[in-house]
Amino acid sequence: MYAPLTNDTFLRACLRQPTTHTPVWLMRQAGRYLPEYRATRARAGSFMGLATNVDYATEVTLQPLERYPLDAAILFSDILTVPDAMGLGLSFAAGEGPRFERALRDEAAVAALAEPDLDKLRYVFDAVTSIRRALAGRVPLIGFSGSPWTLACYMVEGGGSDDYRQVKTMLYARPDLMHRILDINARAVASYLNAQVAAGAQAVMIFDSWGGVLADGAFQRFSLDYTRRVVAGLRREVDGQRIPVIVFTKGGGPWLREIADCGADVVGLDWTVNLGQARAAVGAQVALQGNLDPNVLFAPPETVQREARAVLDSFGSPRRADGGWDGHVFNLGHGISQFTPPEHVSALVEAVHSHGRLQRQSA
Amino acid sequence: MYAPLTNDTFLRACLRQPTTHTPVWLMRQAGRYLPEYRATRARAGSFMGLATNVDYATEVTLQPLERYPLDAAILFSDILTVPDAMGLGLSFAAGEGPRFERALRDEAAVAALAEPDLDKLRYVFDAVTSIRRALAGRVPLIGFSGSPWTLACYMVEGGGSDDYRQVKTMLYARPDLMHRILDINARAVASYLNAQVAAGAQAVMIFDSWGGVLADGAFQRFSLDYTRRVVAGLRREVDGQRIPVIVFTKGGGPWLREIADCGADVVGLDWTVNLGQARAAVGAQVALQGNLDPNVLFAPPETVQREARAVLDSFGSPRRADGGWDGHVFNLGHGISQFTPPEHVSALVEAVHSHGRLQRQSA
Repeated sequence: MYAPLTNDTFLRACLRQPTTHTPVWLMRQAGRYLPEYRATRARAGSFMGLATNVDYATEVTLQPLERYPLDAAILFSDILTVPDAMGLGLSFAAGEGPRFERALRDEAAVAALAEPDLDKLRYVFDAVTSIRRALAGRVPLIGFSGSPWTLACYMVEGGGSDDYRQVKTMLYARPDLMHRILDINARAVASYLNAQVAAGAQAVMIFDSWGGVLADGAFQRFSLDYTRRVVAGLRREVDGQRIPVIVFTKGGGPWLREIADCGADVVGLDWTVNLGQARAAVGAQVALQGNLDPNVLFAPPETVQREARAVLDSFGSPRRADGGWDGHVFNLGHGISQFTPPEHVSALVEAVHSHGRLQRQSA
Repeated sequence: MYAPLTNDTFLRACLRQPTTHTPVWLMRQAGRYLPEYRATRARAGSFMGLATNVDYATEVTLQPLERYPLDAAILFSDILTVPDAMGLGLSFAAGEGPRFERALRDEAAVAALAEPDLDKLRYVFDAVTSIRRALAGRVPLIGFSGSPWTLACYMVEGGGSDDYRQVKTMLYARPDLMHRILDINARAVASYLNAQVAAGAQAVMIFDSWGGVLADGAFQRFSLDYTRRVVAGLRREVDGQRIPVIVFTKGGGPWLREIADCGADVVGLDWTVNLGQARAAVGAQVALQGNLDPNVLFAPPETVQREARAVLDSFGSPRRADGGWDGHVFNLGHGISQFTPPEHVSALVEAVHSHGRLQRQSA
């Protein structure tokens, strides 16, 4: 049905198999820093107009791959498609973040919440299949979703927040309501990701963008436990090929060992984490993805390359002294900024590829 | 000159000496959640009108102590007084955060930067002396400053930021300029805190509110190294009484061991840190301050009390099995929210005091 992969380096690194170089992709790599993205978005009229149109979504997903020899593609979509399909009414006002028309603020709203009809998310699965075909085996395609907790943050706050007051008030004052939302979210996210895999996604990533705002203890009960349920419900193999699962908790450094135990193949790390120490702690159990500060990309190309090499050196050669392999997928520690000069990304990708090859020779 | 302390529990906990209960104070305890604070601020006309007037500053500093049996007072001021005195032009627009009229955006601006004339900060030192007198020995008075890095963030961004793009661009692209700012800030902060101690502060706290946004490696070079310089330059004893130094890095969990080595007596922790694990790691070296999520205070009083006890139990009795003592100062992991119901703070303080006494009996 699909062309065989000509570059499977990303999948191999996720599964801690030998690689010739360290694969690299960038969170939000199809985005506003690219003039060709801005052109397509202008034609689509709006962000959701872009995300819900299969042709546009395919076009922008492939744009960064035309510019840079990246080792993976990621579905162009939004983490809030699932609550939108639950009927909360997602919109993006110009210049602002996402907004839900019907935030979950009381018991009645929570009681009325239910898993979405996956048919309302058909546009996502159609985009996955279209992108997979268009990739023609160049690199693997990553599907994704927000984590149950991160979706709940938006669903209760009704949008972004800087103090998470509404969602944390519910968490502490009415944990029963919060657990009900999270339980529904966990089932919905698992179904959603499995449908992406059925549609052609070759790896899936769970973004726990707001897990790091929780207190120790609350993180485990209200975020990680539900991420674990999602992971446990995922289809992990298609036609004999393992489907790697990546879990990324922004600000999750304090709980690295627990996150590494959640059943994922890969743990994503933000830039506050020391990659070498993280590898020593959990590198025999999971591959690691990350973790350059996206702001490094504002520095001159030579600095970008030096900082990229420092990230690779912090991890070290994935080939271990005992002859086995650990896994490292190079990425930013967060989405790429819209203000990034595109030519700095070229310098970054070149440095990751060339230095990764050198590391394997000298190891 | 000043009345002797009738409650020195806070200082004793900071210095890892025996205590009858766990002392508690709250970051931003003199603030908008108190109607009496809002009344004084209305009279003062503006935030800086409040902070620069000795009588108003004294009045609001003491307000929370009239309501709650807190174990420490903290100077009412702002972390940005130092860059304001450097001539950057601080203002607070209604409903917005702080703004600097003259942000440091180019080489010329950085070259022109110099340590401030401390005389321009006389209003702060006068407030310290006035508050110390008004306290009449009830509890110790804490002075404070922003860390060199945190001040630099505001000085370069010109205000708050959600991506720290300007300051990180300078850090990565022109580290020489950033080091110059940080060097000046470190000298200025040390002088500023020493003048607060000379004016009557009995402990000092350095707020590294934005240290946690830095990448591993950059945090050590651009934040912690300069905090260490400040600490090394501080006067640590007055009339035979040790002046404890507290260093609080929001998001500093990944670097706890390194922060504990900076020379401070106390390390402040946000709510993401497991207090028991932190004590095991560094509790023999420094006292720990924290770490309840301020959002817990939106829950009903019984929940507030249960969560407060959980924080105390995570640390455990400060009396060790070997008969020695470790130190715990109860606090929030961040400033108290303006939306906090004041009566929930009563419940919190009561629970900390009563449960702390119980812990010591059963230990």
